[in-house]
Parts: sequence; C-alpha cells; structure tokens
Amino acid sequence: MASITFTDYASSATARLLPFTGTNFRSNGVVFFRRLVNPLSVRTTSFRSLTIRSSSTSPPVVTAAMGSEAVAKVIDGKLVTKKIREEITAEVSKMKDEIGVVPGLAVILVGERKDSATYHMNEQKILNAVSIEKDVDGFHPLNIGRLAMRGREPLFVPCTPKGCIELLHRYGVEIKGKRAAVIGRSNIVGMPAALLLQREDATISIVHSRTKNPEEITRQADIIIAAVGQPNMVKGNWIKPGAVIIDVGINPVEDSKSARGYRLVGDVCYEEACKVASAITPVPGGVGPMTIAMLLSNTLSSAKRINNLQ
Amino acid sequence: MASITFTDYASSATARLLPFTGTNFRSNGVVFFRRLVNPLSVRTTSFRSLTIRSSSTSPPVVTAAMGSEAVAKVIDGKLVTKKIREEITAEVSKMKDEIGVVPGLAVILVGERKDSATYHMNEQKILNAVSIEKDVDGFHPLNIGRLAMRGREPLFVPCTPKGCIELLHRYGVEIKGKRAAVIGRSNIVGMPAALLLQREDATISIVHSRTKNPEEITRQADIIIAAVGQPNMVKGNWIKPGAVIIDVGINPVEDSKSARGYRLVGDVCYEEACKVASAITPVPGGVGPMTIAMLLSNTLSSAKRINNLQ
Repeated sequence: MASITFTDYASSATARLLPFTGTNFRSNGVVFFRRLVNPLSVRTTSFRSLTIRSSSTSPPVVTAAMGSEAVAKVIDGKLVTKKIREEITAEVSKMKDEIGVVPGLAVILVGERKDSATYHMNEQKILNAVSIEKDVDGFHPLNIGRLAMRGREPLFVPCTPKGCIELLHRYGVEIKGKRAAVIGRSNIVGMPAALLLQREDATISIVHSRTKNPEEITRQADIIIAAVGQPNMVKGNWIKPGAVIIDVGINPVEDSKSARGYRLVGDVCYEEACKVASAITPVPGGVGPMTIAMLLSNTLSSAKRINNLQ
Repeated sequence: MASITFTDYASSATARLLPFTGTNFRSNGVVFFRRLVNPLSVRTTSFRSLTIRSSSTSPPVVTAAMGSEAVAKVIDGKLVTKKIREEITAEVSKMKDEIGVVPGLAVILVGERKDSATYHMNEQKILNAVSIEKDVDGFHPLNIGRLAMRGREPLFVPCTPKGCIELLHRYGVEIKGKRAAVIGRSNIVGMPAALLLQREDATISIVHSRTKNPEEITRQADIIIAAVGQPNMVKGNWIKPGAVIIDVGINPVEDSKSARGYRLVGDVCYEEACKVASAITPVPGGVGPMTIAMLLSNTLSSAKRINNLQ
C-alpha cells in the first residue's frame, strides 16, 4: 500500500500528524499528492514536524556572511519564515475566533514500494484530480497559465518560487527593470520563478541544460535564481558584482567531517559567491524553510477564499 | 448591436461568410470571440476574404531581399502559407470523403458601437466561456499553462506565435541551443512565442517596456521575434550579424506616396535589418498570412480531435 498521512493543524499553535482513514477530510481541507521521488520530498519530510509557534520574533535582520572576504548580506530564510509564521498564526487565530474555522491541510504521500507501484499511478492524472481551489501547490496548468498571463491572477503561486520572491520583497530588493537569470526550467521552480519575476517587470533570461554559455548570461543578471540541482554549479566568476542570489538547490555532497557523512550545499558555490554578490541565501536555511511557510500561506489563502474572507 | 458574423468553410475549396442567426452553429463548429479593438483586428478583417485554394503551389523558396546591400534571405510567409493551405485542403478533403465531416469555424465580432458597449462585455468572462476543446485561438489559461509546462501538451497553440515557429521550421532554422530574444510580452504573441522557443530548447530572454537595455539583449540573440507594436523600433545595430528575424509588428505609418496615405511597417527597421540579419520576414507578407493559416490548422485539429481522428 502507498504510505498515506493526513496532517491537520487544528489549532493555530500546533501541527498534528494524524493517520488518514480515507473519510476524515475536513470540509475545508486541502488535499495534495506528492510522489516521494520528486525533488520536493525533502520538503514533505520537513512538513511532518511542522509547527506554527506563537512566540514573538524579531523582523528579519541582515547578518554578515562567513569568511573574511565576504561582502554579501545573508538572506536569512529562517528568520523571515519565523515572521511569516507569526503572521499566519495571527490570521488563523482571528479566523477561528470570528467564524470558528481553522484551515486544514491533507498530505497524501505515495511511496516507492513495489506493491504500490502496481497501481501505475499517473502523476498528471492525480494532479488533474486535485480541485483547483485546493491546489495549494499551485501546480495545476490553469494556475501556471494564469501566472504567465498579464491581467490574470493565479489562485495559488507555487510555494518554492513564491518563497524566492517573498525573500526578495522582505529584503527590499528591487525587481522592476532589473535583469534576472533563472537557472533551471522545471515546472515547479524555474519556470514559475521566471514568470513571477516577469510579472514584477524584471527582464528575464532562462538558462538550462541546453544553454551554450550559461555563465555569460548569468553574469549579466542583477538577480539570480538558481534551481538546477547541481552542487556548486554557479561559480564566483558567473556572478555580476553586487548581484542578489537566491539559491534553491539542496544537494547532498560527501563530507567525512559530518556525522552523517554528507552535508547539504546549494547550486551556487557559496564560498565564492559571497565575495561577489551583494546578498545571498544560505543552504540550508534560505529558500527551504520559505517553501514550507508559503505552503501554509497558500493553505490559509485557500481556507479564506472558501469561506469568503478577504 | 454588436456586429456578428459566422464563417464556415463548408467545402475544402472555398470559404463562405454567412450571417449568424444564433442557431446555425454546426455541432462540430468552433466559436471564438474577438473585440475589434485588439491588435489582431487586422487578422479578423483579413479573415473575411479567406479562401482555401486547391491550386498547386511550389514549396517555399528563398528570394533575395531588396536593396543592393541586402544580405538577408526573405522568409516568405505568403509562400509558406500557400503550401500550408494546400496541406490543410488535402486533409479536409480526406476527412470529408472518409467521415463526411468538414471543419467549421464561427467568428463573432464585437464592435465598438456605443449601443454594443452598454452590454459591458468582459473579455475574460467571454474567453472563459469558450470550451477549451474549441479554443482555436489557444488563449485559454489552461492552454497557456500547458504550453509553459514540460511534459504537458496544449490543445491549441496561439496562432501568431505558432506561425512564427512554423516559419523557422519551414526555413530550416535551428532553434535548439540558440539564444532567442522575444521583444514584447503580450498574452497572445510575446509570452507564448517565448514559451514555444523554450519548448524547443532555445535560451530565451524577454524584452519589454521596462527593459533598460533592450538593444544590448537583442544584439545577443540568434533569433529575434519582435512583437511590440512600435514601427521600426529594432534598428540595424540591435541585431547580431547573421541573426534570424521574425517581425510580428504591423504598424501603419504615414506615406504620402501611397494612395491610402499610409503604408504598413514592422517593429523591425527592414532597410537596416536586411543588411545585418541572415533571414527576415517582410511586413506585410511575413507573419500576417501565417496567423490565418495557423487558425485554419487549429480549426482542423479541433475537428479531428472531436471526431477521434489522428
């Protein structure tokens, strides 16, 4: 059988992981499916321990990057996430007080067990089966289409690219009129990230595996979003001095010094980049936690919309 | 009242323009709406005199550009269109012989008369009301979303950008791995053209009104698609020697020598561009006729799909 879990944060202060019985969906619950093999499984795993804390936090602050030659500010995803979770907590509390409703999020994990595989599940069919009003991942083609079109609004923006843009906003990075290079063109990160940047009047270039001179194009960009899944691919000499870098990559590389035998690095060579860029997200602690926060944000939006709240 | 017409090419050899009575839609007819004020009104007008001829034509040939210094091949949209219409004619004849069905296309024109305007028609609502299976313009967000996503296929590709790519194909222009600049980011041309080029593994940059250095980015491109609606905007020094140019613009400029008092020019300064580019579409006679041919092609696809034909 596929491994199936149901997550429901029934109060604004805690998240609970409940077994899914197949009938205990809340009427305003949000359901999504995710194959464990996809790159976002890390995120799904993190989600198991998801909590929304109501403790007070400081606004995001800029901290110095590591290394004596570092010039880049660190864009601290953990701090921003803490702030966003507080904002969501407050909104959920208000919603609960006013109409007695708390948003619910259902997660169905489909594993790689052979007995599961016999069902030959089709990703497109499953994604299409999710109601667009509950597509908190924002992966439905109708959402992507609306994202691409001027004058249209998607119901949900995919969580990781939404998190990238939110980081730029919260750190006051101007997007309008800037050159932006998006490295990677996946349906769930690269492409929607490029569409979002363009919606905010950046001039985008999309770099991918067939691009002949990726370093040349990347070097022209004021904003770089790297989402390609290649450890340390973007070197210091790919980066325009003063550029802002959002690194989506989460790549395990061998590290005998680590107890686990590996450490996580981004798509950008941090040690080199932090000497050239004006600001950069660390890995981990950059985009990763933002993805989860944006999933909560989308879940809240869904619940508000279903309940006709602003 | 809004001006409403119904077009139906009932035989493979002729197109007929019939008054729309509101009840005479064919069951396999395709309906689309278009406000006359949009940039494609030229196309709608052209469509009134649409005919599909069954005469034989030569395959597209490359003709010399005008001017003694010209080096660019002329990408002849009229010739390619003639060939495509023959291909469509043959397919329609075959369909008629085999299953007795001829594709139908219904056009509803909404004019700018004040008495029409009192209905406050909403473009989005009207477009949403068109069945996706009959959206031969390919403007539905679901189509655009599928166009943007890897591993997904749109039911229809918007006609003008489809025509641009078809010209590149028919003239043997390699797209994979090439740099492409799309100038303009409209929902109906610029954005889908960029998505199509990316689907074919070009590295795209999208230039628009907020781009600070459009000439610099354009000059890096091997393929330029200009769809911005500014007469002669792209000058010779914007163009990389040997680039291929698809000019979507159809702009009237004053011309006292013309009987009409004006002539049509593209977004690209043809006189300058044809000395630098390796190939270029003329205006008129480039993309314009291709748009109409692609509308017929989409209509045929729709009829085939509805009738379960390959």
